Amino acid sequence: MAVEYDGSAFSGWQRLTRPGEEGRRDEATVQEAVEAALGFVAGQPIATVCAGRTDAGVHARAQVIHFDSPVARDPRGWVLGTTTRLPPSVCIRWCVPVAADFHARFSARARRYRYRLLNRPVRPALMREYLGWERRPVDAAAMHRAAQVLLGEQDFSAFRTVHCQAPHARRNMHAINVGRDGEVIDFELQANAFLHHQVRNIVGSLLVVGRGEKPEGWIAELLAGRDRTVAGPTAPPGGLMFLNPLYPPGCGLPAEVTLPDA
Amino acid sequence: MAVEYDGSAFSGWQRLTRPGEEGRRDEATVQEAVEAALGFVAGQPIATVCAGRTDAGVHARAQVIHFDSPVARDPRGWVLGTTTRLPPSVCIRWCVPVAADFHARFSARARRYRYRLLNRPVRPALMREYLGWERRPVDAAAMHRAAQVLLGEQDFSAFRTVHCQAPHARRNMHAINVGRDGEVIDFELQANAFLHHQVRNIVGSLLVVGRGEKPEGWIAELLAGRDRTVAGPTAPPGGLMFLNPLYPPGCGLPAEVTLPDA
Repeated sequence: MAVEYDGSAFSGWQRLTRPGEEGRRDEATVQEAVEAALGFVAGQPIATVCAGRTDAGVHARAQVIHFDSPVARDPRGWVLGTTTRLPPSVCIRWCVPVAADFHARFSARARRYRYRLLNRPVRPALMREYLGWERRPVDAAAMHRAAQVLLGEQDFSAFRTVHCQAPHARRNMHAINVGRDGEVIDFELQANAFLHHQVRNIVGSLLVVGRGEKPEGWIAELLAGRDRTVAGPTAPPGGLMFLNPLYPPGCGLPAEVTLPDA
Repeated sequence: MAVEYDGSAFSGWQRLTRPGEEGRRDEATVQEAVEAALGFVAGQPIATVCAGRTDAGVHARAQVIHFDSPVARDPRGWVLGTTTRLPPSVCIRWCVPVAADFHARFSARARRYRYRLLNRPVRPALMREYLGWERRPVDAAAMHRAAQVLLGEQDFSAFRTVHCQAPHARRNMHAINVGRDGEVIDFELQANAFLHHQVRNIVGSLLVVGRGEKPEGWIAELLAGRDRTVAGPTAPPGGLMFLNPLYPPGCGLPAEVTLPDA
């Protein structure tokens, strides 16, 4: 299934309580909402696995999840039935039956994120839940150039949060593109996987370069230094969108989450 | 001044109470919020005139207002000072001193609106406050062709609400473009001025054609018939955005609200 959500009012994807227990209202998670709705459609508890956990306030265009269903429903029934039981900030985009060995997390070969920033003196009113904001002028082209040193397999220790639980910090960055369209700057990143806060820490550090406070070469220095305490601040969550994971063509998933044939 | 707002939580632009009185909380208007903030910056009550009143739930990217100020503040002070006193859903984009005979409503030569529709089986979660939604497949090219009969000076009685207070229904439609980008269909309209509910009624009627329930020529029939009771339903407000008014170059306003030189 692909889940679309506005993360503004959620404490992130991951369930904080066990299934059946009720979470505190100020700690609602997307996973709990989705599992409750799926459980209603299935008539029994359903546990899900997602492609990439998102933090509080972060959005998703196509978060992919898998689950084992004890009951047969056609895909349309899952999509519409589950969406009916979800709050307005969450919906199910599509549903596809998969092979028993498909795994939303481990089968994924890549993840794509976008950070959207409004760059103007005045804070956003429109779309404010979906935008970061930088009031000082920033140079998008300089940020794009500086970011290219992050490509390839690298140790991203400089950009992971101290709370990151991954056993190591090596990730393979496939692409980073920074571009401006008027007052909006988009940072698009694709990697095999991401560390906790990695995108927001990279954006925060690129902005230091974009404002001209550090030279473009500083990003390479940060990467080589592997020291989180030296990098820029973590960009706020609202601007971040998990676009989609990417799976091998053999998984039989829709084109938006499928890698091109090799 | 240009005011940007997310109209989701407002009962439209227009003040429902007199200045100084407090509106009911469930009837908050953008005008009240803006005048309260301006009044704080000026240190005395300020009354505003807008380019185009918007309904409850309708958004604006650049609503232009004018007012007479009894005090001198530089434009930056007006923009930042007023925005600080506004709720998160409203901000001031820019401020420019104008000649005494400038009038936000009467000096405007045109208004531009955009209606954005999500066309897919499942309701939107992301950006849901900014989108209309049509679950059935619609033909954007057919709607574009059908809409072209609305160009020029016409009597738009068929598309005005019964509550419309304009003395007559003649308006000059400069352009209507309907285009699809994936699941999103944009309707962009420019006219010298619009009647109450005109854009939403035109969109509602075009959707009847887009779904194939009426032929393309039906729009011409509606226009000629001048009978509101025959046209399609009023499209919901959330998808509608007042993009901007347009003024003659001589007004000295920023490019986004200025007509190209003749």
